[in-house]
Amino acid sequence: MEIIFGKHSVRAVFLTRPEDINRVILLAGKMQPPEEFLELANKAGIKPEILPWEKFLRVCGLSEADTHQGVCIVAEPRTIYDESELDILKDCKYVLALDQISNPQNLGTMLRNAAFFGVDAVIMLRNRSVDVSSIAVRVAVGGAEFVKIFRVTNLARSLEKLKKLGFWVYGLDEKGQHTLAETRFAEKVVFVVGAEGEGMRMRTTQFCDELVRIPGGQGGVTSLNAGVATAVALAELFRDKK
Amino acid sequence: MEIIFGKHSVRAVFLTRPEDINRVILLAGKMQPPEEFLELANKAGIKPEILPWEKFLRVCGLSEADTHQGVCIVAEPRTIYDESELDILKDCKYVLALDQISNPQNLGTMLRNAAFFGVDAVIMLRNRSVDVSSIAVRVAVGGAEFVKIFRVTNLARSLEKLKKLGFWVYGLDEKGQHTLAETRFAEKVVFVVGAEGEGMRMRTTQFCDELVRIPGGQGGVTSLNAGVATAVALAELFRDKK
Repeated sequence: MEIIFGKHSVRAVFLTRPEDINRVILLAGKMQPPEEFLELANKAGIKPEILPWEKFLRVCGLSEADTHQGVCIVAEPRTIYDESELDILKDCKYVLALDQISNPQNLGTMLRNAAFFGVDAVIMLRNRSVDVSSIAVRVAVGGAEFVKIFRVTNLARSLEKLKKLGFWVYGLDEKGQHTLAETRFAEKVVFVVGAEGEGMRMRTTQFCDELVRIPGGQGGVTSLNAGVATAVALAELFRDKK
Repeated sequence: MEIIFGKHSVRAVFLTRPEDINRVILLAGKMQPPEEFLELANKAGIKPEILPWEKFLRVCGLSEADTHQGVCIVAEPRTIYDESELDILKDCKYVLALDQISNPQNLGTMLRNAAFFGVDAVIMLRNRSVDVSSIAVRVAVGGAEFVKIFRVTNLARSLEKLKKLGFWVYGLDEKGQHTLAETRFAEKVVFVVGAEGEGMRMRTTQFCDELVRIPGGQGGVTSLNAGVATAVALAELFRDKK
């Protein structure tokens, strides 16, 4: 079972896989819980549980610090694809591959970025990588529902597989020879980004067709946050969209 | 007095204003504290205090959750400029103006972005805006030292003042008529961004010369995080840098 909270994230599950929702838990307050979520629950045939503050937190397993906005659901776990299923991406065009992302906030930001720009799938490592946790899903404000998520054992092997499906693999790396603007992107693109601070593993860079960089970093601050850098790279890819 | 922690942020203060540093506090451990900071302290003529874990946290006013990396300084507060000093930007080219940013993480990300790309100054509201707190400075990984920070009482009036200095004011807004890529930017640019969720205040949009938008958001996730969106806008501005 998966706990999902926050208005955007919960709304996205109602939109994409309402059949997976088992419980709808709303915070009781002076006012009624948001009409929208009462209606969504009703439409999905679920009687919402409206609970006072402490019980709401306990039942949802949340802490005071979680920005739940009084809206929470319990759902079947989302589909996570594995390496053997990469073939389903053969008609897709945009894939984001994450090398050892360890921070749930960054993962959430990346899922949000991916969904905003229209990336088809996000590939991450099965080990050496953070889980698609409630926090990551919350930070993604629904993004986790709109992209296919893969967890793979071997990233290099997965990149090879994607190349056979016609993808060209770009690594975001400050040592890249060309800037984003100087790069003419292929029709089918995999963008690989590494962890904050460390960047991609050397082994991963060897499986990239090209390394590209974001110009900047001369002024004493030499890098961007990993989630931010990912967005800058994706923005370039989708730059001519209207 | 200002408490600054984290290796990057502390290093940036040693680099830009060592004379402001009053105390250097390092975490005692099994190993020596990082040689680099012992040397920096030495060069600045300050005897570092090397303290065990609990005392380190107490003296620095930090909690377990703060990612201090065992490095902390106490320094004179950084220079914060005010509205009457906007004239010093007359020969500058890039200004980022923040309308009601309330989250210290986002502010920190924005300062980091600004410094990475080479923005000259960041302008924020004196009221209705988060402080340039230790957390924001930490997240900025030094960025707070490399850009001029202004806090102004009236953002609209400040934008008017900047226009008189030759700046053209662009607001980042999803209702913008043109995308970033469609915009031909002026030589002297102010970029205005609003708070997460709410965006710019209506009054602020009226003082912009143009509203521009990031293409995307059709896939169920309609917006980017405010710090992320700022980076995407700045990346476009500095796109042709090498």
